[in-house]
Amino acid sequence: MTKPILTLAALLALTAPAAAQEEPQGAPSPNEIVAQAEPDEWVAIAAEDLVVMTLAPDAEGKERKVVIQLMPAPFSQGWVENIRTLARAKWYDGISVNRVQDNYVVQWGDLNYDNPEAEGEPKLLPEGLRVMDESEYVQAIRSDDLLARTRYPDPYSGWSALIGGWPMGALQETVHSNQYRAWPTHCYGMVGVGRNYSPDTGSGAELYTVIGHAPRHLDRNIALVGRIVEGMEHLSSLPRGTGDLGFYSAQEADKRTPILTVRVASDLAEAERPAFEYLSTDGETFARYADARANRRDPFFIVPAGGADICNIPVPVRRTGQ
Amino acid sequence: MTKPILTLAALLALTAPAAAQEEPQGAPSPNEIVAQAEPDEWVAIAAEDLVVMTLAPDAEGKERKVVIQLMPAPFSQGWVENIRTLARAKWYDGISVNRVQDNYVVQWGDLNYDNPEAEGEPKLLPEGLRVMDESEYVQAIRSDDLLARTRYPDPYSGWSALIGGWPMGALQETVHSNQYRAWPTHCYGMVGVGRNYSPDTGSGAELYTVIGHAPRHLDRNIALVGRIVEGMEHLSSLPRGTGDLGFYSAQEADKRTPILTVRVASDLAEAERPAFEYLSTDGETFARYADARANRRDPFFIVPAGGADICNIPVPVRRTGQ
Repeated sequence: MTKPILTLAALLALTAPAAAQEEPQGAPSPNEIVAQAEPDEWVAIAAEDLVVMTLAPDAEGKERKVVIQLMPAPFSQGWVENIRTLARAKWYDGISVNRVQDNYVVQWGDLNYDNPEAEGEPKLLPEGLRVMDESEYVQAIRSDDLLARTRYPDPYSGWSALIGGWPMGALQETVHSNQYRAWPTHCYGMVGVGRNYSPDTGSGAELYTVIGHAPRHLDRNIALVGRIVEGMEHLSSLPRGTGDLGFYSAQEADKRTPILTVRVASDLAEAERPAFEYLSTDGETFARYADARANRRDPFFIVPAGGADICNIPVPVRRTGQ
Repeated sequence: MTKPILTLAALLALTAPAAAQEEPQGAPSPNEIVAQAEPDEWVAIAAEDLVVMTLAPDAEGKERKVVIQLMPAPFSQGWVENIRTLARAKWYDGISVNRVQDNYVVQWGDLNYDNPEAEGEPKLLPEGLRVMDESEYVQAIRSDDLLARTRYPDPYSGWSALIGGWPMGALQETVHSNQYRAWPTHCYGMVGVGRNYSPDTGSGAELYTVIGHAPRHLDRNIALVGRIVEGMEHLSSLPRGTGDLGFYSAQEADKRTPILTVRVASDLAEAERPAFEYLSTDGETFARYADARANRRDPFFIVPAGGADICNIPVPVRRTGQ
């Protein structure tokens, strides 16, 4: 067997391989389409909507930072405000990652609360947290926000759409209504609020992110408050817990990753403040990108799928500045 | 804040929490339904269809074994036979995991072939490997195999169904036909065959598994040959590569996990031979399980989803014997 010049770098290619001279001609890939977007198609994310979570350094002593984008109005704003309150009270400092369940979630919180084997007293929560109810899992939206982006059938109830930069499910308010109720969907990397049995909806003190196939049965059952826009790999590659539900058992207490600090980006010194922007989901480029995700015509592909689910059209987010 | 007796073990519960006295009453969970299946609803997997891949021990010296179930006829049989040939020639022994791309794939193969920075000569492949073409990505099936299990719309082209224990997509052969063509789908943990640009379809010497949201745009574009039925966490929790496409760069060569041996289970001594069975997807219990996955009515849930995508109804597989 002769060694190909290209090797298998092209395999499952998401970006153009380096050895482009061997690449057959074809349509641009989704990433190539995004790279061609005009600067004004990118939307800056407010520093108030970014949260920086610093984990303890890894085994090699390397820094691990995770950046979360909080969800904009009208979705989940009570929990989002609680997260800012908790961060500003430094309540999250010193908590840990207590649960890593394969193909499901990574969850962090107070070890004496968010842990089936807890023996100590939980941390006191700061004053001023809002108590939300289940009605706030869904929000009224204008029908034209929904109809703009719905293209493929959704196996879950209702419609799916990208609204204001976020993946959403939606249902008509009534059969004869042109009003819709929408809710964020549990895609990979989305961040949600741990809760106990209903009517508890959680405060925002216990959070989790999705590290597997979208568990969309959780939509409308738990509040989603944001998504991880950088550093996801620091959570998704953690060792899986062997206790019930993927919690780390007492015998593997050393596997719990300490969380050193959680800060709202707008509270950081300018030099440490990260800046991100997302590709507008209302623009021409996003429409081309979504179409290319559903119908790959770049050289690696033989048969376009003819569709895509809402979690397989991730909204492009990138770091800016500095 | 008082400490709840139940704590958040119930959060995102997939199984009944230990402190059941606090749990509200409700319908059984999907896992509880599966636990009630009659013994004759479980189908034994032939030892010839199981492959045991032994990775080098982890940093703590712990054994890491991954068990792959190969796909049954009529799907992907040329590649499946190649995998047995490669395993029996001990060709896989000494290869490594060379690529870990977050929310996408873990890929293993010959470092001198399956690596954009390769400098050495690739390993010679054994004699007798079959060369497959793209037509074998899909197979004709009887229409009653398909129609039995299709319930929810699929955002990708055509239908989705669980056929013979496997997640499948399918399309009508022609508009007026009652024949269908079906193909396996790229769900979490499915195993596929690395390839270069078409018309290459890969030999089976380079393999990957899905570690994120189902990349179903790859369906009908790459051969799927099986799924991981045990030890998935040994692959999904590996550190992500920082090179192009998640390959480990030369600077992080120490992150490549050596693969010590790959053996067909039927070739192992009886004491080392694992045995597994899956829940028949044609039975009454599976139908109840699939319905419960799509409409969670167990106590944690408030609103049933009203549907589920094919990759969110994973086929239950369990170890037996010993």
